[in-house]
Amino acid sequence: MFKRILIANRGEIAVRVFRACRELDIEPVVVYSQADAEALHVQLAERAYCIGPARSADSYLNMDAILTVAQATGCDAIHPGYGFLSENDQFADACAQAGIAFIGPSGDVIRAMGNKAAARKLMVAAGVPVVPGSDGAVDTAQQAKELADSIGYPVLIKAAAGGGGRGMRRVFEPDQLIPLFEEARSESVACFGSGEMYLEKLILNPRHIEFQILADKEGHVIQLGDRDCSIQRRNQKLLEESPSKALTPELRARMGAAAVAAARAAHYENAGTIEFVLDQEGNFYFIEMNTRIQVEHPVTELVTGVDLVREQIRIAAGLPLAHTQEDITLRGHAIECRINAEDPAHDFQPRPGKIDFVHLPGGCGVRVDTGLYTGYTLPPFYDSLMAKLIVYAPTRLEAIRRMRRALEELIIQGPPNNVDLLHQILHHPDFVRGNYTTGFLEANMDTLLAWSRSGEETEEK
Amino acid sequence: MFKRILIANRGEIAVRVFRACRELDIEPVVVYSQADAEALHVQLAERAYCIGPARSADSYLNMDAILTVAQATGCDAIHPGYGFLSENDQFADACAQAGIAFIGPSGDVIRAMGNKAAARKLMVAAGVPVVPGSDGAVDTAQQAKELADSIGYPVLIKAAAGGGGRGMRRVFEPDQLIPLFEEARSESVACFGSGEMYLEKLILNPRHIEFQILADKEGHVIQLGDRDCSIQRRNQKLLEESPSKALTPELRARMGAAAVAAARAAHYENAGTIEFVLDQEGNFYFIEMNTRIQVEHPVTELVTGVDLVREQIRIAAGLPLAHTQEDITLRGHAIECRINAEDPAHDFQPRPGKIDFVHLPGGCGVRVDTGLYTGYTLPPFYDSLMAKLIVYAPTRLEAIRRMRRALEELIIQGPPNNVDLLHQILHHPDFVRGNYTTGFLEANMDTLLAWSRSGEETEEK
Repeated sequence: MFKRILIANRGEIAVRVFRACRELDIEPVVVYSQADAEALHVQLAERAYCIGPARSADSYLNMDAILTVAQATGCDAIHPGYGFLSENDQFADACAQAGIAFIGPSGDVIRAMGNKAAARKLMVAAGVPVVPGSDGAVDTAQQAKELADSIGYPVLIKAAAGGGGRGMRRVFEPDQLIPLFEEARSESVACFGSGEMYLEKLILNPRHIEFQILADKEGHVIQLGDRDCSIQRRNQKLLEESPSKALTPELRARMGAAAVAAARAAHYENAGTIEFVLDQEGNFYFIEMNTRIQVEHPVTELVTGVDLVREQIRIAAGLPLAHTQEDITLRGHAIECRINAEDPAHDFQPRPGKIDFVHLPGGCGVRVDTGLYTGYTLPPFYDSLMAKLIVYAPTRLEAIRRMRRALEELIIQGPPNNVDLLHQILHHPDFVRGNYTTGFLEANMDTLLAWSRSGEETEEK
Repeated sequence: MFKRILIANRGEIAVRVFRACRELDIEPVVVYSQADAEALHVQLAERAYCIGPARSADSYLNMDAILTVAQATGCDAIHPGYGFLSENDQFADACAQAGIAFIGPSGDVIRAMGNKAAARKLMVAAGVPVVPGSDGAVDTAQQAKELADSIGYPVLIKAAAGGGGRGMRRVFEPDQLIPLFEEARSESVACFGSGEMYLEKLILNPRHIEFQILADKEGHVIQLGDRDCSIQRRNQKLLEESPSKALTPELRARMGAAAVAAARAAHYENAGTIEFVLDQEGNFYFIEMNTRIQVEHPVTELVTGVDLVREQIRIAAGLPLAHTQEDITLRGHAIECRINAEDPAHDFQPRPGKIDFVHLPGGCGVRVDTGLYTGYTLPPFYDSLMAKLIVYAPTRLEAIRRMRRALEELIIQGPPNNVDLLHQILHHPDFVRGNYTTGFLEANMDTLLAWSRSGEETEEK
């Protein structure tokens, strides 16, 4: 087992990894930017090193500085957390070259899964469903029409060089395909100087469902169930739960098997996440693999009883998986709320600042992962995540009620935050029924904000 | 289901019950003494009523005041917590007469289990082992000798009128029985004017093992596994765990069956605890039944996944048990530490006072039940319990390591407390091996305090 691990991250995930190290009797070494000298992970640590100025590029993304500290302190491994260098293939390579274990997959695997076209091909070869589409450029409108007829409507036409919606068209009716294809191509030529076009199935209001994977160096791969991450603001997850209400046991088993097949095809190692979209007819499609621990990993920990960060470290140290697939059973229900310093009423603008007072909820079935404390000042240089509030209960409805009461107990005096919005979501009939998609928050934002303002809440009954 | 529940308690258990009410959509009504106006349970509640001066007899034991508030606010039930009125048969009767559900067993059951001699008889009749003994007075030394020979040595001779060790003798060898019996009787006659003597088996350094019971109004009784509460200071529990390392699966099953038989014999209803002593040969003996929720109930909640306070409320409302015995499986390991405002180096003297700053641990597998917050002043009128820190992990060793790191994260600036002592216990080789009895703390107190002073800790390896 490792003797000393450098934690190349900040915020709640640095605290999370720090705790896992302590529980494994491994000495954690932390690093921090000049803006983070007062951060909780620094205060907890006996060994903490400043690696540069506030700007991420100068500190948390500074590979040389991080490797220098790791070598100078005799660390035999580096945990990258999420974000920053966690999916950086060059950093994984540099660790390997320096003889330090990178707690994650190899640079080669990160590269393979980071290239979306290559990953898609790998999945097709492995029999994992991907969003049906042209698998490359479509040369003519007639070819596009034939492909669209075969995969079914609606479809999305998009320019290879496109961006910001330019050269992109949604097609709902077969007779509109050829005119809209021509229109999109003309726009692409005009805007980007290229007429190279792709076509794929348009998944309307999908659910975002992901599966947690663990894979060891000996080729054992297990999946630890699903997470539903469809409650999103501007494509960023806000609330996650496990298991998803959208999956039947049969569909869960099929998606889980596909996730294992995907990880095997990638020769994956360590903890990873296979992300799928699930359409309203129950078809699921691979979208990408995240080759790191996820923000929302605690919901999986609560329903499986497996400590994922601990497993990450054990796997990187060369130990075989502590569990077989048969050991993994989902028990109960877990929900995570991301408590952000942001203003939901103003387009979720980040609002860092001083925390004058914080009182965190506790008691039966409540977990809090955070770097907050009374008197701490959130620096303006990083993401707005202040705390993760996670609840566990035997059933989904009990978990919803537990989360409501936990949010009601949470006091954060200081910058604006999204606690009220989360509380309103927990009362929305569609959320309570489990009847929601990635379009939920945008479609309901006005209603939710109006409830917040009036102090009203709707009830599920 | 109840509409409104009065919580007739204070401190962490008032917060615990408050949370259970909120999660069941029941309105909690809290009461408080003049000394508790700033308590967390009062701050959380929308409806809080002062019921009298600080002294318990004038407030938390004031039945009339509590029933008056319950009736005036339209409460249909009262949760007594633990301590105070929780095992008061007259209060249970008074609630029944007032048409308010007492969340606990009936006054008759409380009376029956509160009378130790009657409870012992009931258990004998039900086939539940009790400490072997004379079941009444022993008239002559010869009778005592015959009884002692039949139950086995060591035995304890004690005067019916005795106290403080007077008229009491431990007998380890058969040939000492008659002389020591005569000696004890003479002493008793001299001290108390009575020669009435009892004899029972002396259980040397037992373990304190208790079983959690749930029983509904329809006569269903289940047990939710064991708790080992052998780490005690002055007969008060300090640290509890579930499951006990002292029990084999076979012994656990036998003790569990005895606990269910005990509860059935008592016609028990609601949550209760059957306390046993376990001797070093694996024999167990009923000592008493606690007819209320216990301080240490969270360890059972963590290993079974059952919310015991929720179940208490459901049972009192007339609902059948939500679980059958087959539903109950113990998963993983849980440990609770009682964080007290007391000075272990000075005979555990209580040390109330102002909490200048508190930072509670969190993260994977950590639960905190407390009424503490930064700025709160612990009043000097009640017990010294400030917080319960409870951890959960897949194995006992992982739970021990998790508890150590949680204690290391806990910051309480203010009055002296027992956090260091608990941390030392978690490092003691006998504790780590699970090799401890109710004599552990007394036997090791000097060593543990010396480690605390030197900042040293022993390790399990």
